[in-house]
Amino acid sequence: MTFREMLARAERLNRSMLCVGLDPDPARFPPSMRGDASRIYEFCKTVVDATSDLVIAFKPQIAYFAAHRAEDQLEQLIDHIHRVAPGIPVILDAKRGDIGSTAEQYAREAFVRYDADAVTLSPFLGFDSIEPYLRHAGKGVILLCRTSNPGGADLQSQRFVGGDRMFEHIARLAAGPWNGGGQIGLVVGATVPDEIARVRELAPDLPLLIPGIGAQGGDAAATVRAGWRGDATATTGPIIVSSSRAVLYPPGGGDDVAAASRQAAEAARAELEAARP
Amino acid sequence: MTFREMLARAERLNRSMLCVGLDPDPARFPPSMRGDASRIYEFCKTVVDATSDLVIAFKPQIAYFAAHRAEDQLEQLIDHIHRVAPGIPVILDAKRGDIGSTAEQYAREAFVRYDADAVTLSPFLGFDSIEPYLRHAGKGVILLCRTSNPGGADLQSQRFVGGDRMFEHIARLAAGPWNGGGQIGLVVGATVPDEIARVRELAPDLPLLIPGIGAQGGDAAATVRAGWRGDATATTGPIIVSSSRAVLYPPGGGDDVAAASRQAAEAARAELEAARP
Repeated sequence: MTFREMLARAERLNRSMLCVGLDPDPARFPPSMRGDASRIYEFCKTVVDATSDLVIAFKPQIAYFAAHRAEDQLEQLIDHIHRVAPGIPVILDAKRGDIGSTAEQYAREAFVRYDADAVTLSPFLGFDSIEPYLRHAGKGVILLCRTSNPGGADLQSQRFVGGDRMFEHIARLAAGPWNGGGQIGLVVGATVPDEIARVRELAPDLPLLIPGIGAQGGDAAATVRAGWRGDATATTGPIIVSSSRAVLYPPGGGDDVAAASRQAAEAARAELEAARP
Repeated sequence: MTFREMLARAERLNRSMLCVGLDPDPARFPPSMRGDASRIYEFCKTVVDATSDLVIAFKPQIAYFAAHRAEDQLEQLIDHIHRVAPGIPVILDAKRGDIGSTAEQYAREAFVRYDADAVTLSPFLGFDSIEPYLRHAGKGVILLCRTSNPGGADLQSQRFVGGDRMFEHIARLAAGPWNGGGQIGLVVGATVPDEIARVRELAPDLPLLIPGIGAQGGDAAATVRAGWRGDATATTGPIIVSSSRAVLYPPGGGDDVAAASRQAAEAARAELEAARP
């Protein structure tokens, strides 16, 4: 199955637009395992097992593994997801961006070493920095477009002389000349629904990966209205709404990671589904 | 010593502006070790030992290690450089770029786990994606500004309504409001000397990391004239001119990696020094 097919199937099967982001921070683990980087896999596995019937995708953030020399635990984790939740896509959140010969190595890291179904990338270096990933047929390539952090506007919202703001220019390229094989998606933060709507206008059927609900304050209903496209029979413009900290470290979560993360994921999924037109 | 102090000392001590880029590709290793990813450390160590008196810096590219599950060999390599060439800065070429909480993890990867002296970053997500690295006092933070690859112009050379092209906007931010602690440098490709000169104009004293001589076709003399600033007594605007493939895999290099890489590095260094005004 291609990334696009996996997404469509997972959305239907789990009735979900929710993506659980796996950002394991040992300092925030429950008391019984707090600070223990050797338990990153165990912590994430518990969350995956408790939520795999509630999600459209899982999104491990590689920085949290790399900071703790836990690449082996990331390999184990993705392998585990593929075994217990076959068909649920794994998006490796890596935001790589480098010239062609180096991009080939990063593509190998994401798709061969880790066997991810999609990867996030920065478009800063232009098309030849994206193309080596597209050679991996069927894999998803999700480009940063308009991010939800405060500094996102420093460059992305600057207006070019042609009239487009930078994120609009990226959306046009991603939906047009760069997307020959239909593998591309875009990252658009949940904190500014108007900008999600604008990206959706420029890229009507691309998957949008939307982080920023939960801890970062994005509004779930406004996100769905601005980004999701489809009708009762089919989704034409899917959204992958990612929540990390709110699911992994819910307030008052305590030692029962499985119960707490499941409850938080159920609530986030329900809120998104309620907004589906 | 801070990254800036290490750079100044290495330039003077080794009379060099040459940075050897460590992009180990087992498929290009000499016949006796070709294809053997377990010998990445050994290959790079041989190059480091043969060239450490000729360089201003070493620049390992993390993708080449990550693609081969060789993070442990990267740790070993940086540790080795610090031991045999104390004072020669190690620039981890990672081009990371992510929101604040994730950037903290990547900063930990670069500066704590790998003990690099500087790291390359993408400015695409704005200042709050850079700031967590600057909290590591004395470490260098080198931002992509104008890259040497064909697609570099796709975004970086687009003109904003204010009049600046994007790379000029980045150079102004890097030399001004973003550079409180004096830790920032810029990446500018060697293939367009006019643009190096323009970045140097906007950022008179920032270190410029300039890849693209050698295999990518940049002209060494034009690069020095456009980028280096100083006089007979001191460097005020240093340049770090990086060559990877031309030093690691010189044509006809054969099995004697030490001799071949030393000869290639000596030639590149001499060409750069000859252009020093």
